[in-house]
Amino acid sequence: MQKNVGNCLVAQSGGPTAVINSSLYGVLAAAMKCKTIDKIYGGLHGIEGIIDGKIINILDFPSKILKQIKYSPAAALGSCRYRLKDFNEGKDDYIKIFEAFEKYNIRYFFYIGGNDSMDTADKINKYADEIGYDIKVIGIPKTIDNDLMFTDHCPGYGSAAKYIATTTLEIALDTEVYPKNTINVLEVMGRNAGWLTASAALVREKIPWLKHLIYIPEIVFDENKFLEDVENAYKRNGNIFIAVSEGIVDKNGEYVSKRNNMYTEDAFGHAHLGGVGDYIEKIIKDNIYKRVKMVRLGTTQRCAMHFASKTDFEEAEVLGERAVEFAIRGISGKMVSIVRKSNYPYVYDIDIVDLNKVCNKEKKIPLSMINEEGNNVTKEFIEYARPLIYGEIDLPFIDGLPHYTNLKYSV
Amino acid sequence: MQKNVGNCLVAQSGGPTAVINSSLYGVLAAAMKCKTIDKIYGGLHGIEGIIDGKIINILDFPSKILKQIKYSPAAALGSCRYRLKDFNEGKDDYIKIFEAFEKYNIRYFFYIGGNDSMDTADKINKYADEIGYDIKVIGIPKTIDNDLMFTDHCPGYGSAAKYIATTTLEIALDTEVYPKNTINVLEVMGRNAGWLTASAALVREKIPWLKHLIYIPEIVFDENKFLEDVENAYKRNGNIFIAVSEGIVDKNGEYVSKRNNMYTEDAFGHAHLGGVGDYIEKIIKDNIYKRVKMVRLGTTQRCAMHFASKTDFEEAEVLGERAVEFAIRGISGKMVSIVRKSNYPYVYDIDIVDLNKVCNKEKKIPLSMINEEGNNVTKEFIEYARPLIYGEIDLPFIDGLPHYTNLKYSV
Repeated sequence: MQKNVGNCLVAQSGGPTAVINSSLYGVLAAAMKCKTIDKIYGGLHGIEGIIDGKIINILDFPSKILKQIKYSPAAALGSCRYRLKDFNEGKDDYIKIFEAFEKYNIRYFFYIGGNDSMDTADKINKYADEIGYDIKVIGIPKTIDNDLMFTDHCPGYGSAAKYIATTTLEIALDTEVYPKNTINVLEVMGRNAGWLTASAALVREKIPWLKHLIYIPEIVFDENKFLEDVENAYKRNGNIFIAVSEGIVDKNGEYVSKRNNMYTEDAFGHAHLGGVGDYIEKIIKDNIYKRVKMVRLGTTQRCAMHFASKTDFEEAEVLGERAVEFAIRGISGKMVSIVRKSNYPYVYDIDIVDLNKVCNKEKKIPLSMINEEGNNVTKEFIEYARPLIYGEIDLPFIDGLPHYTNLKYSV
Repeated sequence: MQKNVGNCLVAQSGGPTAVINSSLYGVLAAAMKCKTIDKIYGGLHGIEGIIDGKIINILDFPSKILKQIKYSPAAALGSCRYRLKDFNEGKDDYIKIFEAFEKYNIRYFFYIGGNDSMDTADKINKYADEIGYDIKVIGIPKTIDNDLMFTDHCPGYGSAAKYIATTTLEIALDTEVYPKNTINVLEVMGRNAGWLTASAALVREKIPWLKHLIYIPEIVFDENKFLEDVENAYKRNGNIFIAVSEGIVDKNGEYVSKRNNMYTEDAFGHAHLGGVGDYIEKIIKDNIYKRVKMVRLGTTQRCAMHFASKTDFEEAEVLGERAVEFAIRGISGKMVSIVRKSNYPYVYDIDIVDLNKVCNKEKKIPLSMINEEGNNVTKEFIEYARPLIYGEIDLPFIDGLPHYTNLKYSV
């Protein structure tokens, strides 16, 4: 009996998404129903907070607040960008984590995050095996970047794609009002994969008159070819809409955003990627046409809960619930994943995949989804992405603003 | 009889808003019900298109499409930024406009726009008087900038404010997830008035832990004072949210955006204002703290129909309807305006004001709404702006995207 009943711990990691809290809610809802799980703890700021002993009892919160979190963007428990070292390189973290696990009798650990987070979950699972600590570890995918392997797509992507596509549609209609032509530039997130930027193409059939150009990290950025593309499109179509990933690189592997005069690096010498839009704006103005309007969506695209996709929102919750179900069936060291059965109607199933298969890998847009010129996506991409943006959510509102909450600040 | 029955012409001008088409719909709905109005024409691209004879019969469109336009952002009839000269300086335009009026027997002219557009409407009204052409001219206000005089506020502002405030809220929650501090910079539109930027303060009570700083064109921008503000706030609060108007100026009246290396001007030497956010980002990074995230909302804020305010949406339609009612009662040379009766509950009335009182003037944020330090707004502003963002709209959707339409492209 003692062996089967234990407590669970859930934490969130990496960049937030609009629906990361739906997965958290799914875990909570399933864990509350489950007889083999007693207490439900949350780790604040992911594994970094767990190492520091920042663990809260989630059932201390009124259930009204817990219900609200699923309608709230950003990580309700806080997040981190902390990479667990290999055990051989730094065992202190592991000792602290497992001290916390013992202290709170944690027998189920759910980690919601991207590929770095799956690496962390994998390491914890292996270490538990090694020291003979009985715990089930399940990863729950989330990332607007949609770059996790072995899952059809990632929760968070559909909502970001819906927001980006709608913003594209609205900017495109705005552009059409003037007799003068406009070249629009939309800077979209995406360090190594172009899924988010490509979602701007979802409006293609809605506004067939608009010439779209899409530049993603999967294709080497050639400035001369780019200016040629833009000039040709401008001469033929007048109005153009350019979506560009912040992470596009040239043939030397250098980020194009470095060419921006305002380019900066962080304390570790990592590029601050925002800024490629300004550079693209400038070279178009200098070489082709002055009337260029640039929008940098920045963090808005990963937290736009006000326009989340219902499909995405529901899938995120289901993944959280299923993670708990797999764990209590004794499964460990896996990530829950989405398997698509059909596009129209959109049907999916939930499966599991080994954490160590997923971690530290990135799924890029396959070449079959990119056009020959390397400046747009094919119909295959549209059919892939379209079902993910279906449906809208009825958010709670107070005084004209969405009623969001955050467990970290409710503590 | 002949004298009373005539046709009407409606056109749109200036920068689009999320709800400019609601006013257009209001005009159409009222004109269709009105016995003294026969045909309903639309001028494409505002007065510029009317001068070029680009006039369409709106009743040629299926009523299904006409209903859709009110749920569509951007100007359904197209817009222009064309300033009518005084008659003495250029009579050609007037002759063409009145040739068109005669050709289509236009007896009612409705012009939806900002202060430049009210100037155009005023000039047309006076010229009609002078040549004895019987026409009623009514202006219908719209501008996200909220800078028209003699109206409590302008349709378009409430929706933009709701979008900006919600975006602020979402970015703020996103920021809170990490243990590391972040300084956020949101670049907001507004050449001479700070109403839009100030709307970021509407989230103040929702996230009391977040330090807000707001910089608007009404207050001279002093870079040293700014850096002091930011440094103090950063030391005290860690996370900061800075909203800045693209049109802030220094003590010499120079746009701060000019200090951006990427600064450019248009063919007429007018500043392209977008870019102040990059400059603000850079001086913070250079002087205070490296982790700065900048979002440039650009045109998204004026066309975000996907999150429009219901209050704004409905008022815009009512103003269109009432414009028609005033015109058929024989009133001309006026702009319909909003008079606020009460904040809580929010009650307003529609009045009229002389076009020549409104045109070429700008309403700035009064000093009583700005704090002593000049870096935020007072409670008076919050109470003024809050009712304008109340309520949400049920948009029609197809395939996960709003179903927008545009008469210009349906022709």
